[in-house]
Amino acid sequence: MNTYRPPLDDIRFAFETFDFDGQLGGIEKFSDFDLDTCMTLLEQYAKYCADVLVPLNKKGDDVGVKFDPATKTVALPDGFKEAYQGFCDNGFLTIPWNPEYGGMGAPVAVSTMAGEVLIAANKAFSMCSGLTTGLIEALEAHGSEEQKAAYLPNLISGVWSATMCLTEPQCGTDLGLISTVATPDGDSYLLSGTKIWITFGEHDMVDNIVHLVLARLPDAPPGIKGISAFIVPKVLEDGSRNPIFCGGTDHKMGIHASPTCVMNLENARGWMVGEPNRGMRSMFVMMNAARLNVGIEGVALGEAAYQAALMFAKDRRQSRSLDPAKQDRSASADNILVHPDVRRMLLEVKSTNEALRGLVAWIAVAADVAHHATDEAVRERAEDLVALLTPIIKSFGSERGFHNVSLAMQVCGGAGYTKDWPIEQYLRDVRIAMIYEGTNHIQALDLVGRKLPMHGGRLLRVFSDEITNAIRDSAGTPEMAEFLEPLKAEAKRLTATTMELGGKLPTDPELLGAIASNYLNQFALVTLAYVWVREAKAALGRPDGDPVRQSKLQCARYYMQMVLPEAAAYAAKVAVGKGVVTDIDVDLL
Amino acid sequence: MNTYRPPLDDIRFAFETFDFDGQLGGIEKFSDFDLDTCMTLLEQYAKYCADVLVPLNKKGDDVGVKFDPATKTVALPDGFKEAYQGFCDNGFLTIPWNPEYGGMGAPVAVSTMAGEVLIAANKAFSMCSGLTTGLIEALEAHGSEEQKAAYLPNLISGVWSATMCLTEPQCGTDLGLISTVATPDGDSYLLSGTKIWITFGEHDMVDNIVHLVLARLPDAPPGIKGISAFIVPKVLEDGSRNPIFCGGTDHKMGIHASPTCVMNLENARGWMVGEPNRGMRSMFVMMNAARLNVGIEGVALGEAAYQAALMFAKDRRQSRSLDPAKQDRSASADNILVHPDVRRMLLEVKSTNEALRGLVAWIAVAADVAHHATDEAVRERAEDLVALLTPIIKSFGSERGFHNVSLAMQVCGGAGYTKDWPIEQYLRDVRIAMIYEGTNHIQALDLVGRKLPMHGGRLLRVFSDEITNAIRDSAGTPEMAEFLEPLKAEAKRLTATTMELGGKLPTDPELLGAIASNYLNQFALVTLAYVWVREAKAALGRPDGDPVRQSKLQCARYYMQMVLPEAAAYAAKVAVGKGVVTDIDVDLL
Repeated sequence: MNTYRPPLDDIRFAFETFDFDGQLGGIEKFSDFDLDTCMTLLEQYAKYCADVLVPLNKKGDDVGVKFDPATKTVALPDGFKEAYQGFCDNGFLTIPWNPEYGGMGAPVAVSTMAGEVLIAANKAFSMCSGLTTGLIEALEAHGSEEQKAAYLPNLISGVWSATMCLTEPQCGTDLGLISTVATPDGDSYLLSGTKIWITFGEHDMVDNIVHLVLARLPDAPPGIKGISAFIVPKVLEDGSRNPIFCGGTDHKMGIHASPTCVMNLENARGWMVGEPNRGMRSMFVMMNAARLNVGIEGVALGEAAYQAALMFAKDRRQSRSLDPAKQDRSASADNILVHPDVRRMLLEVKSTNEALRGLVAWIAVAADVAHHATDEAVRERAEDLVALLTPIIKSFGSERGFHNVSLAMQVCGGAGYTKDWPIEQYLRDVRIAMIYEGTNHIQALDLVGRKLPMHGGRLLRVFSDEITNAIRDSAGTPEMAEFLEPLKAEAKRLTATTMELGGKLPTDPELLGAIASNYLNQFALVTLAYVWVREAKAALGRPDGDPVRQSKLQCARYYMQMVLPEAAAYAAKVAVGKGVVTDIDVDLL
Repeated sequence: MNTYRPPLDDIRFAFETFDFDGQLGGIEKFSDFDLDTCMTLLEQYAKYCADVLVPLNKKGDDVGVKFDPATKTVALPDGFKEAYQGFCDNGFLTIPWNPEYGGMGAPVAVSTMAGEVLIAANKAFSMCSGLTTGLIEALEAHGSEEQKAAYLPNLISGVWSATMCLTEPQCGTDLGLISTVATPDGDSYLLSGTKIWITFGEHDMVDNIVHLVLARLPDAPPGIKGISAFIVPKVLEDGSRNPIFCGGTDHKMGIHASPTCVMNLENARGWMVGEPNRGMRSMFVMMNAARLNVGIEGVALGEAAYQAALMFAKDRRQSRSLDPAKQDRSASADNILVHPDVRRMLLEVKSTNEALRGLVAWIAVAADVAHHATDEAVRERAEDLVALLTPIIKSFGSERGFHNVSLAMQVCGGAGYTKDWPIEQYLRDVRIAMIYEGTNHIQALDLVGRKLPMHGGRLLRVFSDEITNAIRDSAGTPEMAEFLEPLKAEAKRLTATTMELGGKLPTDPELLGAIASNYLNQFALVTLAYVWVREAKAALGRPDGDPVRQSKLQCARYYMQMVLPEAAAYAAKVAVGKGVVTDIDVDLL
């Protein structure tokens, strides 16, 4: 059942709230891309997703990918190749890239929000272009001019796709354990080793697949400082097959139409990207963008599940309103939207998901500012926000997304558990987002261990300024008081939690690991409260009868009263410290 | 991969803590069933589950059930029929039933905890006997002597299985909407209608299936007061086929080897159970036991997932301890159990799951006391606890169980998302527990709307006495202070929340629906804190070096400090009231 409608109106609202035109208008590169133009582009993009990709989503899940051990090839479900071709022919892959290599040169903010729609339409499908995006970014940042010229045009157009080959059986989170070896051979290298969990490592939608492979030179130092990055194309320039072969695909809970491959390199030829032993730099370029996009997976499938649940609820009659005055005597039962708990579940999803979308839109615009603003102070400020909030988007977005899809299933009762509705697929597909691109705890360590102390705490000060400014901007608006007071209280509590930690963390390394996950959640809840203050203010700027005005205000109200109280519980857990996990006998687990 | 070991030691610990022998020892019926005897029985039961049913679990998931539209039959995966036969031949289905009809006459507490092991071993398989249990209870309570003699022996031995035919396309939660009709025909009835979501409605493991069907007499009053219950066997006494046919099976996220059937009654012959228009009474007998067992599903799969995650963690090395002193320099990475967040996740699961198991053991023993104690005051007290805490076990057990399985997956990273490990199946299988046998919100309405006001608030007083007594019993033990103080504080907060509600609910019906789910969670967290106080006290009774002593104390400590703080957040949400959900424009959702 096709229940998904791309939420373009709310994407536009989020962009307007965070001043898309004001932020990007002064940037020469984006002179052709005001918000109206970008929304027109998103409309075309969303139409293609809804018309072509949504109908393939369940089919992809049912059929999955087929690995042929004889030919070491992977076949995608019927229709995927044609859909991918059409997607590329429309130029949808080119949105944010350099026009010099065939890109459209539009803001990353636009391709980011397009990503939400693409993932919601067909998450498995979205993963192919997602990985290609990663290599394009790595090449733009660290590739030689020759490499850019050789690879970027075909990657940007979508004629070729790309992968990230990081994980090996003995190393996932800890890439320092990588053992794949790259032996110099003339001006290139021969790589041998086994990589696992390679998304779209092998498939039949394109003619060539360009792998970015992490490996060690024979004389490399051990650990993370001995890793180099290599481009290893499936098909070499002379048309011969490079010996990087798929050894099988994993069977997973979800994203069945996204092949997750074991890749065996048997003296495969590769070319180094960037400098020797500095491969992690290229990888982090890919990872940061990827982390933002993984956070969006939670928003995307949370939205899709919400829409399905709402459609179900609008049609379903069951039991009587608890308030006799609200009972519909013309029917034998009332519509379930009359029940407070059904509304509670829907508002829980909507109020967290729209705030997460607003957060992503804000940070995606900031990413463009960080790269292209002419004023260095403006650039730095935007860069700080992107660095600070990306781990929060990845972790909280994926965690809350999973929770939200589960809530949407609950609205539908037994129907939600069956394959007659798309929610159970969304639940299976979204769960991986908490794990890949750095588990959610790795995000928390990044936030607390790297981003907070960075530049003497500057990132946090930039964020605090944002909150202070938002509160000041609304202080004269009486209707804003109900939103400002909870934000103020929880921002104050977060500051207290952070100060307390700041005094302890430098001398207590394990405390970091013990509190990071709960701290990130506390931080995230305050961040979303900030987003709601911005969106509530924007909503109050709309005329009285405008439905967006009331819709946003009732969501913001729900969030402040019914979601934000969780921040105090996380603060209480952070305050417990580490003893409760470190001072145990682990053999008794 | 077979990672599950039945947790018999903890089941025994829970029974001892809640004084199995002391509670049941004075009951004549159970004179042959002291704890030692019952544990021996559970050992045999657990061995069969581990040896025969665990190996079929993944296979059942992979293969699923096969419906043949031509013959209207349903085939289970190979091996299920033989496994069921063996299960019945061992007498495992007979544990709690009346010896007069072939039962073993053992305490329900024993079959309840056996249920945990059975579900963990193979949840899909467990559902067949689970449904049979329901009909046996309904017949024992409301069947005629003739009906008991005709059906109970074959149901208790397992030669026949049973179903509950409640739901119809237009009615799930709201059974008042049932439209299946039963027309009198001699001393029996002819039933016509369609039932959906009938678990094991058709299958090939037994020769006859006895359906308990809710339907209306032609002259029945509308709504819930016009429903009667009928026994409708698949095969009639003369060997002819009764026209109740399977019209198809649902495709679901999980429990693939448990057929979920559409059942079409085409003038099927049935016999009334109990009185006309009083069918809901029979159904509630089945439902109450079923609700306890659904709560156990969360415990069962939470435990199974925990064990798999722990096995993974013990073997996995990744990254370095944040504390240099704890780094293992003999290897290139440390075991992940050294990382505080891995411990946090495991303790989160263990501390909630063991408390839930303790709660189930307590209430299951109370169920036996409620039925069989000679002292009426003792019976009443036990009955009150069962009535009050069953909705909490069903709702919180299933919700936390789902969360716990997800946490266990997170411990395993990407491996947990693949079918190489059993956790992804557990996650899919456990999710339905939040929905069936009355959605979790229905449990919350039952708690707040029925159980709290029942007998002038007596149930709550009985529960409060339990807490008061537990605190008094430990007041002289200094080591108990760290557990008593948090329990006292949160019990006090719960009392305040309840008093506040008590003043408002009688005049504000919608408030009930708005707060019930959050109130149940607050109540559940306090209940589990009470269980931990009992278990910590019991653990302190063990000698100093006993591993159980330290294991229980470190779990109790984790729970009090890191889980119980969530109760305050739920209290804050309850205090918000209803306006945030009732005073919205529902068209703007």
